[in-house]
Amino acid sequence: MAPSSPRLVVKVDLKKKPWQQSKPLHNRWHPEIPSVATVKAGEFFRVEMIDAMGGVVKDDASADDIKNADLSTSHHLSGPIRVLDEDGVAAKPGDLLAVEICNLGPLPGDEWGYTASFDRENGGGFLTDHFPCATKAIWYFEGIYAYSPHIPGVRFPGLTHPGVIGTAPSKELLRIWNERERKLEESDLKSLTLCEVVHQRPLANLPTTKGCLLGNIEEGTPEWEMIAKEAARTIPGRENGGNCDIKNLSRGSKIYLPVFVEGANLSTGDMHFSQGDGEISFCGAIEMSGFLELKCEIIRNGMQEYLTPMGPTPLHVNPIFEIGPVEPRFSEWLVFEGISVDERGRQHYLDATVAYKRAVLNAVDYLFKFGYSKEQVYLLLSCCPCEGRISGIVDSPNAVATLAIPTAIFDQDIRPKVRKVPVGPRIVRKPDVLKSTYDGKLPITKNPSWST
Amino acid sequence: MAPSSPRLVVKVDLKKKPWQQSKPLHNRWHPEIPSVATVKAGEFFRVEMIDAMGGVVKDDASADDIKNADLSTSHHLSGPIRVLDEDGVAAKPGDLLAVEICNLGPLPGDEWGYTASFDRENGGGFLTDHFPCATKAIWYFEGIYAYSPHIPGVRFPGLTHPGVIGTAPSKELLRIWNERERKLEESDLKSLTLCEVVHQRPLANLPTTKGCLLGNIEEGTPEWEMIAKEAARTIPGRENGGNCDIKNLSRGSKIYLPVFVEGANLSTGDMHFSQGDGEISFCGAIEMSGFLELKCEIIRNGMQEYLTPMGPTPLHVNPIFEIGPVEPRFSEWLVFEGISVDERGRQHYLDATVAYKRAVLNAVDYLFKFGYSKEQVYLLLSCCPCEGRISGIVDSPNAVATLAIPTAIFDQDIRPKVRKVPVGPRIVRKPDVLKSTYDGKLPITKNPSWST
Amino acid sequence: MAPSSPRLVVKVDLKKKPWQQSKPLHNRWHPEIPSVATVKAGEFFRVEMIDAMGGVVKDDASADDIKNADLSTSHHLSGPIRVLDEDGVAAKPGDLLAVEICNLGPLPGDEWGYTASFDRENGGGFLTDHFPCATKAIWYFEGIYAYSPHIPGVRFPGLTHPGVIGTAPSKELLRIWNERERKLEESDLKSLTLCEVVHQRPLANLPTTKGCLLGNIEEGTPEWEMIAKEAARTIPGRENGGNCDIKNLSRGSKIYLPVFVEGANLSTGDMHFSQGDGEISFCGAIEMSGFLELKCEIIRNGMQEYLTPMGPTPLHVNPIFEIGPVEPRFSEWLVFEGISVDERGRQHYLDATVAYKRAVLNAVDYLFKFGYSKEQVYLLLSCCPCEGRISGIVDSPNAVATLAIPTAIFDQDIRPKVRKVPVGPRIVRKPDVLKSTYDGKLPITKNPSWST
Amino acid sequence: MAPSSPRLVVKVDLKKKPWQQSKPLHNRWHPEIPSVATVKAGEFFRVEMIDAMGGVVKDDASADDIKNADLSTSHHLSGPIRVLDEDGVAAKPGDLLAVEICNLGPLPGDEWGYTASFDRENGGGFLTDHFPCATKAIWYFEGIYAYSPHIPGVRFPGLTHPGVIGTAPSKELLRIWNERERKLEESDLKSLTLCEVVHQRPLANLPTTKGCLLGNIEEGTPEWEMIAKEAARTIPGRENGGNCDIKNLSRGSKIYLPVFVEGANLSTGDMHFSQGDGEISFCGAIEMSGFLELKCEIIRNGMQEYLTPMGPTPLHVNPIFEIGPVEPRFSEWLVFEGISVDERGRQHYLDATVAYKRAVLNAVDYLFKFGYSKEQVYLLLSCCPCEGRISGIVDSPNAVATLAIPTAIFDQDIRPKVRKVPVGPRIVRKPDVLKSTYDGKLPITKNPSWST
Repeated sequence: MAPSSPRLVVKVDLKKKPWQQSKPLHNRWHPEIPSVATVKAGEFFRVEMIDAMGGVVKDDASADDIKNADLSTSHHLSGPIRVLDEDGVAAKPGDLLAVEICNLGPLPGDEWGYTASFDRENGGGFLTDHFPCATKAIWYFEGIYAYSPHIPGVRFPGLTHPGVIGTAPSKELLRIWNERERKLEESDLKSLTLCEVVHQRPLANLPTTKGCLLGNIEEGTPEWEMIAKEAARTIPGRENGGNCDIKNLSRGSKIYLPVFVEGANLSTGDMHFSQGDGEISFCGAIEMSGFLELKCEIIRNGMQEYLTPMGPTPLHVNPIFEIGPVEPRFSEWLVFEGISVDERGRQHYLDATVAYKRAVLNAVDYLFKFGYSKEQVYLLLSCCPCEGRISGIVDSPNAVATLAIPTAIFDQDIRPKVRKVPVGPRIVRKPDVLKSTYDGKLPITKNPSWST
Repeated sequence: MAPSSPRLVVKVDLKKKPWQQSKPLHNRWHPEIPSVATVKAGEFFRVEMIDAMGGVVKDDASADDIKNADLSTSHHLSGPIRVLDEDGVAAKPGDLLAVEICNLGPLPGDEWGYTASFDRENGGGFLTDHFPCATKAIWYFEGIYAYSPHIPGVRFPGLTHPGVIGTAPSKELLRIWNERERKLEESDLKSLTLCEVVHQRPLANLPTTKGCLLGNIEEGTPEWEMIAKEAARTIPGRENGGNCDIKNLSRGSKIYLPVFVEGANLSTGDMHFSQGDGEISFCGAIEMSGFLELKCEIIRNGMQEYLTPMGPTPLHVNPIFEIGPVEPRFSEWLVFEGISVDERGRQHYLDATVAYKRAVLNAVDYLFKFGYSKEQVYLLLSCCPCEGRISGIVDSPNAVATLAIPTAIFDQDIRPKVRKVPVGPRIVRKPDVLKSTYDGKLPITKNPSWST
Repeated sequence: MAPSSPRLVVKVDLKKKPWQQSKPLHNRWHPEIPSVATVKAGEFFRVEMIDAMGGVVKDDASADDIKNADLSTSHHLSGPIRVLDEDGVAAKPGDLLAVEICNLGPLPGDEWGYTASFDRENGGGFLTDHFPCATKAIWYFEGIYAYSPHIPGVRFPGLTHPGVIGTAPSKELLRIWNERERKLEESDLKSLTLCEVVHQRPLANLPTTKGCLLGNIEEGTPEWEMIAKEAARTIPGRENGGNCDIKNLSRGSKIYLPVFVEGANLSTGDMHFSQGDGEISFCGAIEMSGFLELKCEIIRNGMQEYLTPMGPTPLHVNPIFEIGPVEPRFSEWLVFEGISVDERGRQHYLDATVAYKRAVLNAVDYLFKFGYSKEQVYLLLSCCPCEGRISGIVDSPNAVATLAIPTAIFDQDIRPKVRKVPVGPRIVRKPDVLKSTYDGKLPITKNPSWST
Repeated sequence: MAPSSPRLVVKVDLKKKPWQQSKPLHNRWHPEIPSVATVKAGEFFRVEMIDAMGGVVKDDASADDIKNADLSTSHHLSGPIRVLDEDGVAAKPGDLLAVEICNLGPLPGDEWGYTASFDRENGGGFLTDHFPCATKAIWYFEGIYAYSPHIPGVRFPGLTHPGVIGTAPSKELLRIWNERERKLEESDLKSLTLCEVVHQRPLANLPTTKGCLLGNIEEGTPEWEMIAKEAARTIPGRENGGNCDIKNLSRGSKIYLPVFVEGANLSTGDMHFSQGDGEISFCGAIEMSGFLELKCEIIRNGMQEYLTPMGPTPLHVNPIFEIGPVEPRFSEWLVFEGISVDERGRQHYLDATVAYKRAVLNAVDYLFKFGYSKEQVYLLLSCCPCEGRISGIVDSPNAVATLAIPTAIFDQDIRPKVRKVPVGPRIVRKPDVLKSTYDGKLPITKNPSWST
């Protein structure tokens, strides 16, 4: 006889606030956030988590919660979890932590999620210069499938995964992060060619005490003040994993995370029912509460064995991933292409970001012709199982990026028809996504070729 | 009874030079290059092509041909092919040309190919600042499989596709290309942030009479001179398709190309036995001669029906693709991640190109630990069926790009091992790729953390 | 706002006996077993079920429970569930009931299962003449994966599905079943060629009051007596679906069941964590308790529209199935072949059953060479995701059947090696499955070529 | 430099008769048919072959060639090929011959094939009691795709494979075959339960000098007479491989054949552009001429190492197969089920052949409702990439067999529709297959429930 149910090491209560949880959540990376649980290598355990926005987004008929969202509180992570080997000795800096995702899903009784785009001046997103308003779509789950009353005519199986999974940084790694990100933030905006095309603000997400949650460290104490001032925000993915948003990290995947502190201090959160490559609308996956069932192994000295730092220090490494054998099987894909020429027709140099933006814009305009609003498509491409590829990155001056969309998720045939050109007005998909007004001052990009 | 064999509309003779072919090849895009063949919608036809470099790269023991390659002659395209509808009326500007790839492969009797990286000052590649030497690997084909004497221990099925397929541009579209690319070329190098990280030269590939081939237009005539001066190089992918390097465009795929000139004037070439996403070493696919068996359909007025221009003019569009149902089925992938922090540790803003460079560098260093030389991995990742993804593009300041490698292509298990850390020297894979010296003057990027 | 959690229409309590459940279970097919719940078309609902054997098989160190199992009680079904359309009108005979499996899995807290072979004289199995003893293996689940302490070195993702799902038969259909099965049972054994090769007993499973459970109909009442005498056993699959054991009926599948009684009266049970094609050891899937989350639609008059009876009456029909898009993705399979020549070398005429038996025997003996006991392989092939195919059924006199096994489920490479023939004793996989003695009198088939 | 093109070891000339080929073909298995070519282990070589029927079936508008076909001449095999190891030592009895299929396809210039059903009294087929007439459909190939003017509205990618591949039997093995098959042929027909359901004739295909081709052994010589009288027909698959009709043996597959004679004497033929599991109409694949590109390896003593005889002698073994990584990727399948109850409603005991017949009949009647003639469906299910599964083989008395059809091969949606029952007459697919009359005397099975 053997134990088979996973041990629940972090439980969440959706009726409570993030800081009221029995194992209080955190939304920053810092080596001194104390662990809330301990697991052994080989042990099968379960971690629950609330959604990235901490429960403030509601299943209601308004996008106001998104418009007024406080991004300083993202994401609400469960953990840190201290990992020991089978003899009880903690993981050590220099080890690799192998984390296998055996199972995952929404929390029972909370089977819904949301996809949203933030206001242009409160977070924005990949196409924020085209879509400056906050918008929101609610998704309901029927087992593996999701559907949205705000994006009718679409239903797809989710490739569920945690958006954020990572280990705690060391003090030294944290210093590196803060320094390089501050430098970017302080750089002259004008010199940032890319930033004129990808209009998202701010340039970086620097440490701030505002909205800071540090688990068991009580707010307002001197310790809290000290840590909150330097703890890294969880928005970007970094050397410790973190918000890597790799949509295929679903059941059966394995993640090899570098260990920077004693015990590894694994944290995870930001559960996604489904996400498209790029998570383009920023709050772009189907965000939900959820659970992970995990197994960890420690590869002693694995960083030296398997990783090669690339940069000034031995800490400049990245995790490795194995993706699992269970994914939805799509046989047909419609592929949109973008090259590194921007909306004004300006040529950029091998810029995959610009090329991908163009591919996404092409897909938005294409699907608009099939009756969806552009805002519906923007949110849909953020969260459906579409693939974003770097197809060509050497053919100066054009990077070629592609966005592949599985045709089976639509209730209509969206392929171009050779013999029969559709006539008459297409069916408009109603209702639309929830929207709010944009009251900001930043200019909006107009497509000079667009005339409706 | 029905005809079943495809009609051979462009035949090549590998013993002849590109300009000696009975249907002379071309290596530029221009509306006035005359068509060499005509096909009807629904007709099943075959096009043969020589390799991208026009036959100058040999199956020998030296990389000198690559070092001294004349890139002004790339690619050597077959066509243009004029397309009529079933009533004999030519495709017209504004139509979409749907091209189905029914079959394709190497030319019988010429079942080999090459993957190469150019000298840093003669073309370069995605990692040219790390690998400035010209290198070359020869691949032999055993049916669907390729193996290389220069990269031992690797064998994989090819996802064969044409690197270049496109329609002729109109005069107006050509003018747009030349203008925007010239502007880039003339821009102040210093302001190009990306260019410091992606060191490839030149910034753009502008028209040049050097190496120019214009099919049936005789070299040296006034017509030739006029066209050669303004005809676009085939290196970058653009609005007409062209060098899009989408590796999944294999058997059963369909390509929807915008039509800019009467008859569409379809050209194709640059056959790849296999390519990784990004084709990172530039001459990076397994380049070969080959054939395509195609069917075309004309979607009348399809550009307006299905495409939306994005930019100053109605010509700023991109093709659409459907990928085919027959692909090698891999079940396990090892995934490397990169974030937009460069080798010096500098933070870039949501830069997918920098992030992908970092992911590729991580993969190179990882596989190096398994006994391959770094040059072997660089070429391998250019041509094996690996996938390059834009995983996160909104989490300021880090773009997250990933490179997924199918583990089944190796004759050893390349996954990190949890319980047993390998000891002792690993087997070195010999012989190595063919190399030449780098005699240039541009500085080479050193990884400060590398110490061997 | 919309309801999203599925409504729980049948709940089971694993601490209670089948007949003590609040919605008592049934193990027979009969039109007069009253429905225990009602659902509407389009409604998302959840059904829980105990395991096929009703909880008598334990996670312990003995196979005695299997040896002494009372097969008259199988399977323990949840339901019947009455189905109404959106206007509240019940499904009618002649309709089709479309049942979509949105989600399914083990019951939380009960994440284990068993695979077993019955004693030759108490149920037997496909190879019972070779393996007459009762055996048992316990499986533990880690999310999507199962592993067994009794079959070391194997781990695989489950393609979980209900073994039994069906509608209630009409009186007339029930009469047809009982008559044809009784005729077989009463036939002269000697004339049954097949039975000499497939030794399983009994020939048919006729109605019996022994072990009979009829849901809300109280045992011992006259009604119970009458129904119990004629109600069909659930062991074979029949016109109403029932025990069809189609291993791919997992998440996202749809089942189109003919409706024979007013309300359809859907019942389901016999949950399998995983099963191989054929479920060869009879108690051969990984049997477990579990839940289904379902949606039903009624296709009015669908039997006439979509099904064609094949036989003497309009009731001789079979269900149709659509299999879902989410399955484990295996890339390599090792395939064993059998032809319709039996163990004694006797030729049978196009007999797929004999051919499949031979293919399975070949696989058992092959894997035995890799260190597994034959009993381990027998149980493994019953429950792992292997595929049983009818490859040739026309080449007189040999049917050709094949059994394909995914190589990735083993922790060793089980393919034949071309260059290096293994030497020395192979590792024996210990511990073995749990076994009991065979005290029976039926002869055991000996392979004349076997000499160990 | 290395050779890359495969060496052509058997060439065929489609303008010549089978016995006129430079390497004359054979259509029998016998140890004394002399080899026509020799290959070394590791060598990459090419074998060409004519179609199974030896060129007598024409791309014309009549089924007369099928009606009058002489089945005594099937199949027309290329070979035997003698295999040596790298040191020039021949394969020996007891070895395993590993044959890798690197590539294969139709012969250039002959890109068409046929699917046919024989007359009930001249070969028959799986459903010959329902479809007693000879029928024929011609298929044309467009690269990987096939379409038929006789089965409009269907197009699919082929999973091309050789129907027959095997080694020469030893004298002793040949004797075993002849004896067991003669015994079956001589058995009392009445006792063969299965034969009443599967009406195909004859029961076995015994040696006959009629139509016999023995390669380089001249017809009429005493040697020819002696061999022709005892050489085995190639119709059934047997211990040496032979006509195994495993449809997945396509590019990248590996076949492990037992060696019974010195040199192995590999023969192959009966190329199929595509085949459904079971090849139900007997001449049921898309039959064509073609080529194979192969590599062989010898596993010394491999029979003892990897195979276990099952039967009276050490020769009672079967080959093993690995299937390749490149198959068409279908995401949706419609599945038909059959149980072992025959058309008269009679119950059979765990009979997978009867169950599969029923599943096929259900599929035929279902697709008939979508506008295809039943004869069209019979031929289509013989040759399209459908899967025949043994789903349940232990649930007495019903075997459950399933037939899964990929929905993407049709130009209409063939799934049952939940909300909208189709009304009015469906489109009839014209023209129909080519048919001949049935002038025979054997009775035809009528479905008592069928009334049109």
